[in-house]
Amino acid sequence: MSNKLRFSANINTFNACADRYVLSGYGQRLSTDELIQAATRVPGLTGVELVGLWHVNDDNLEQINRRVRGAGLEITCVTPDIWASARWGRGSFASADSQVRRDAIEQVKKSMEWARQLKCDIIDLWFGQDGYDYPLQADYPAAWDRIVEGTLECAEYLPEVKLVIEYKPKEPRTHCFVGTVGKTLMLLQQVNKPNVGAMIDVGHTLMAYEDAAESAALLQHFGNKLFYMHFNDNWRLWDDDMTVGSVHTVEMLELLYWLDRVGYDGWYALDIFPYREEGVGAATESIRWIEGLHGLLDRIGRARIDEVVARGDALATSALLREALLS
Amino acid sequence: MSNKLRFSANINTFNACADRYVLSGYGQRLSTDELIQAATRVPGLTGVELVGLWHVNDDNLEQINRRVRGAGLEITCVTPDIWASARWGRGSFASADSQVRRDAIEQVKKSMEWARQLKCDIIDLWFGQDGYDYPLQADYPAAWDRIVEGTLECAEYLPEVKLVIEYKPKEPRTHCFVGTVGKTLMLLQQVNKPNVGAMIDVGHTLMAYEDAAESAALLQHFGNKLFYMHFNDNWRLWDDDMTVGSVHTVEMLELLYWLDRVGYDGWYALDIFPYREEGVGAATESIRWIEGLHGLLDRIGRARIDEVVARGDALATSALLREALLS
Amino acid sequence: MSNKLRFSANINTFNACADRYVLSGYGQRLSTDELIQAATRVPGLTGVELVGLWHVNDDNLEQINRRVRGAGLEITCVTPDIWASARWGRGSFASADSQVRRDAIEQVKKSMEWARQLKCDIIDLWFGQDGYDYPLQADYPAAWDRIVEGTLECAEYLPEVKLVIEYKPKEPRTHCFVGTVGKTLMLLQQVNKPNVGAMIDVGHTLMAYEDAAESAALLQHFGNKLFYMHFNDNWRLWDDDMTVGSVHTVEMLELLYWLDRVGYDGWYALDIFPYREEGVGAATESIRWIEGLHGLLDRIGRARIDEVVARGDALATSALLREALLS
Amino acid sequence: MSNKLRFSANINTFNACADRYVLSGYGQRLSTDELIQAATRVPGLTGVELVGLWHVNDDNLEQINRRVRGAGLEITCVTPDIWASARWGRGSFASADSQVRRDAIEQVKKSMEWARQLKCDIIDLWFGQDGYDYPLQADYPAAWDRIVEGTLECAEYLPEVKLVIEYKPKEPRTHCFVGTVGKTLMLLQQVNKPNVGAMIDVGHTLMAYEDAAESAALLQHFGNKLFYMHFNDNWRLWDDDMTVGSVHTVEMLELLYWLDRVGYDGWYALDIFPYREEGVGAATESIRWIEGLHGLLDRIGRARIDEVVARGDALATSALLREALLS
Repeated sequence: MSNKLRFSANINTFNACADRYVLSGYGQRLSTDELIQAATRVPGLTGVELVGLWHVNDDNLEQINRRVRGAGLEITCVTPDIWASARWGRGSFASADSQVRRDAIEQVKKSMEWARQLKCDIIDLWFGQDGYDYPLQADYPAAWDRIVEGTLECAEYLPEVKLVIEYKPKEPRTHCFVGTVGKTLMLLQQVNKPNVGAMIDVGHTLMAYEDAAESAALLQHFGNKLFYMHFNDNWRLWDDDMTVGSVHTVEMLELLYWLDRVGYDGWYALDIFPYREEGVGAATESIRWIEGLHGLLDRIGRARIDEVVARGDALATSALLREALLS
Repeated sequence: MSNKLRFSANINTFNACADRYVLSGYGQRLSTDELIQAATRVPGLTGVELVGLWHVNDDNLEQINRRVRGAGLEITCVTPDIWASARWGRGSFASADSQVRRDAIEQVKKSMEWARQLKCDIIDLWFGQDGYDYPLQADYPAAWDRIVEGTLECAEYLPEVKLVIEYKPKEPRTHCFVGTVGKTLMLLQQVNKPNVGAMIDVGHTLMAYEDAAESAALLQHFGNKLFYMHFNDNWRLWDDDMTVGSVHTVEMLELLYWLDRVGYDGWYALDIFPYREEGVGAATESIRWIEGLHGLLDRIGRARIDEVVARGDALATSALLREALLS
Repeated sequence: MSNKLRFSANINTFNACADRYVLSGYGQRLSTDELIQAATRVPGLTGVELVGLWHVNDDNLEQINRRVRGAGLEITCVTPDIWASARWGRGSFASADSQVRRDAIEQVKKSMEWARQLKCDIIDLWFGQDGYDYPLQADYPAAWDRIVEGTLECAEYLPEVKLVIEYKPKEPRTHCFVGTVGKTLMLLQQVNKPNVGAMIDVGHTLMAYEDAAESAALLQHFGNKLFYMHFNDNWRLWDDDMTVGSVHTVEMLELLYWLDRVGYDGWYALDIFPYREEGVGAATESIRWIEGLHGLLDRIGRARIDEVVARGDALATSALLREALLS
Repeated sequence: MSNKLRFSANINTFNACADRYVLSGYGQRLSTDELIQAATRVPGLTGVELVGLWHVNDDNLEQINRRVRGAGLEITCVTPDIWASARWGRGSFASADSQVRRDAIEQVKKSMEWARQLKCDIIDLWFGQDGYDYPLQADYPAAWDRIVEGTLECAEYLPEVKLVIEYKPKEPRTHCFVGTVGKTLMLLQQVNKPNVGAMIDVGHTLMAYEDAAESAALLQHFGNKLFYMHFNDNWRLWDDDMTVGSVHTVEMLELLYWLDRVGYDGWYALDIFPYREEGVGAATESIRWIEGLHGLLDRIGRARIDEVVARGDALATSALLREALLS
């Protein structure tokens, strides 16, 4: 029997989502307090992720801590904002501008400090703006050296806080440097610090034609480096950030199976963009899908799955899943 | 309550599958008689598809009919071979070589004749070789005129036999002319014959970033032109021809729902390539998935699905499917 | 020798571009007057596209006309805004809400009226929000009927103004109804009005795994329905809206060749999003690439290209292009 | 001024290419002697790649050496066949069957031995069959351990022969384990032997949404591990193995620029499948494109390219390339 899963959500799940056409957003803009209140309405949700400067800063640290804890929630991750303004448009850690690099590193250190004080030990390091849009636009070796160097500096700054690399193949750049599980493993190996690991964002793996289960297994196999999980779904070609369970049923089952098998015991966090859906409902559905699929694995029996995986027998697996899902 | 579904399979399902690396095939080569015997071992299978010249020709017509009927099977489709030899490498109906065009049309007419005598009224018209590989290689308007013209000539040859266009965006050409449901509808409108319609091959729709349910609905909505169905699954980017149910659960449910809703009452035929799997088992699994998902729709209740579709409420749909699949 | 090309640009080319992460935009926000001034700094640009309500409305019609004409520019297209606010989030012409449909149709009619008074005869009908995000979310036949119906009503409203369907497979919805050239041809055939045609947006064709040249040729071949052109480039999987010439050289050459061959004599308009580039420079480069490639076709000689296309000889074409580009 | 490039080609370039539909091939089957003769007809070609057992074996070693040398060619690479028969259908080094693993390792060692005797120091290690087709079919950590272990054993067998990992995301499996440059770097780091490196196959990088130039630069930057190059082109979504220069002009320019910049001095080998084209012509065109693009870099001037890359200025780069290509 598997352990009880712990669920978190990016607190922006409950805010209006915008895209490049509807910049004002499809829903209603809420205050941080309202976002926290929304989070409490999601059954099973016990954690939230905050974004540095958006929700937490030097001045509101105690207040935000009180509000979140008061609402019965934990802070599971602080994400430094090194990607959401024009300042970072040509990169953060990999920027060719040394002042921008310095500022980005400072932003991350600030978030690390805030996280520490908020009793949160996870920092989401997403290098979304570090990449290129056009051919012949990037100095690849220089960029990678800078990413390694900046990550190393942050890692050493507060060794008790974990830096979690969130890789993604593209968007907002047409190509992001840290784009795949393999590149992430290489980065981790270059940095080589115990407090630097990675997360799997399910949608990002789908975009990269990875199997999320394989990616999770590799991160664990080569150094126990899977520190965090982001759940969502998409149509495999873009980061649609849909609710969990909406498209990929079998692959989600496989992922949940492997997370248990490789000993992942971190948070199951949602990173969805419910553009046209109501946020509380979207988070609720996502959690229920994860719990439902996880429970199904228990009902099938892990040993039986171990056995079909060991045989690599696609038809036996098909029958097992089919009977579990359809009868 | 929905009708009982009728299942068929491309008889090559049971033969060794080959690819461009393993030309001799991953499994065992069987004779046509052995293929027919294999088909009888698939529970629920009551029809088979034959390929012109491969399994049926002027000389074996009676014999093959006796064998198939004797095995308790119907012939649901005859597919003219206008794509499996170097002769067709630069096109069949769209070839720039008028003699090749003529030969291709003759092949199709022969298959129509054979089908008629075999009491089968479906011809699978797959223009796999009609397309282009390189930019600036094709004269598009000329190619389309030739496809329309050839199809028209065949349609008029035996009006009681149905020509079913099987569209596919690519492979073996990097681009096939008749590649999407929209282009197919345009072709059908140009040809404008009651005995010319289309099939949905599920994998081809996935490759084309179509939703198979939408494509089926459009073919029916604009003229009741959905004459046949090919089932399989893939990873959305290539025609992997996997067993049904292996990757796309929810989309398959949606497709089955819409097939009933738009009044499709033709065959549910398998077109899978079980390269490394045993063919009888792969077909059996595929049929069981279709039946299982179809039964699930009944258990949910069509009216409840109608209602969530009418509202376009993604979260309500999610809950409905989740409860049906996971509880 | 080919005709001189006429270039236009979406006037937003010169404004700050935003995405879902950097909602405030990567550059500077300009007023409409400043945008017009920017347009005048692009060598060779003689037209601009305006968006209804953003740049033109009932009150500023004379003023905007004077400003644009005073700057030496023509207005080549008016695009009704039926996609840029939460109001249209669940569709415009295809919305299940009859009031939203009514409002969308009114918006289009208003833009048609404005266009007429501005001596512009092109309306860009982009149904970006008409689609679906999730499986089992859309009533496909109903949606298509509504799109046909709305388009028909607008077409009849002012027959002297042309409605130009801009198809796109996805974004902002994960699936847009009018997504491919084939579906567009079907829509045009259903509507069947002389003042309703289509445009090719090059990036949208790349996303749809279309060859833009083929799509353009088909729109002309089946009814002379290519009314307008949008140029940009991308990495084939998403609407990156990059400058022309940045990735796809050969396909752009093929497109320009076929545009002349099928008698397209409309505007060559830019629809790019220079997120991190300066807009005037990005438009200038794009026009120079188009002119340069177009000139190259002249230098090669159209008759020689006609000949290699007629032969379908990929190696002869390769040699021809190689010699023209590299020696 | 850059060095003169050395060109090789997979000798199968000159043989009939087959696919899963046309198993007998589109062209003519030639003997090994005929293939060698064909290679001599390609201007500029000075090397060929052979496949173990197909073209070279224990008995014909001296003879094949004499024939190739006699034709004025070098043998640049020997590729062990661990992927072209049903025996390897479920994996080679990663197979769950220890006997199959053993046999695969023996095949590689044999090819290493042949290579050594043929004065060739490159072995192409392509794990095409090592992967999975279905979800829940693979034991990922076990598979990776086996790949590392087998590679290590071979590396130690003949340290003077180089093993070159050829990564590819899919085909013939729907997912190959060693699929991306990042995973390859991880594998190289695990194996950690001076005679184990990697190649870039351009088409495989395009399929993986990599920029080939970036991938090449990373392999060099992290350990000088770029040992070999395979050239071809495709439409970015599948390994179409088209002639060089047919689709991606600018990316090929970028790759050639970076190969020089990172000090790659190995062979420029062709790995194309000219299904419907004549092989000698296809190879000739490919070499001429590479030489032409390479020469263009010289004409532009490497220093000027260094400068625009350092600035990351997409518009300056665009202007530079445009002027070089079009004026």
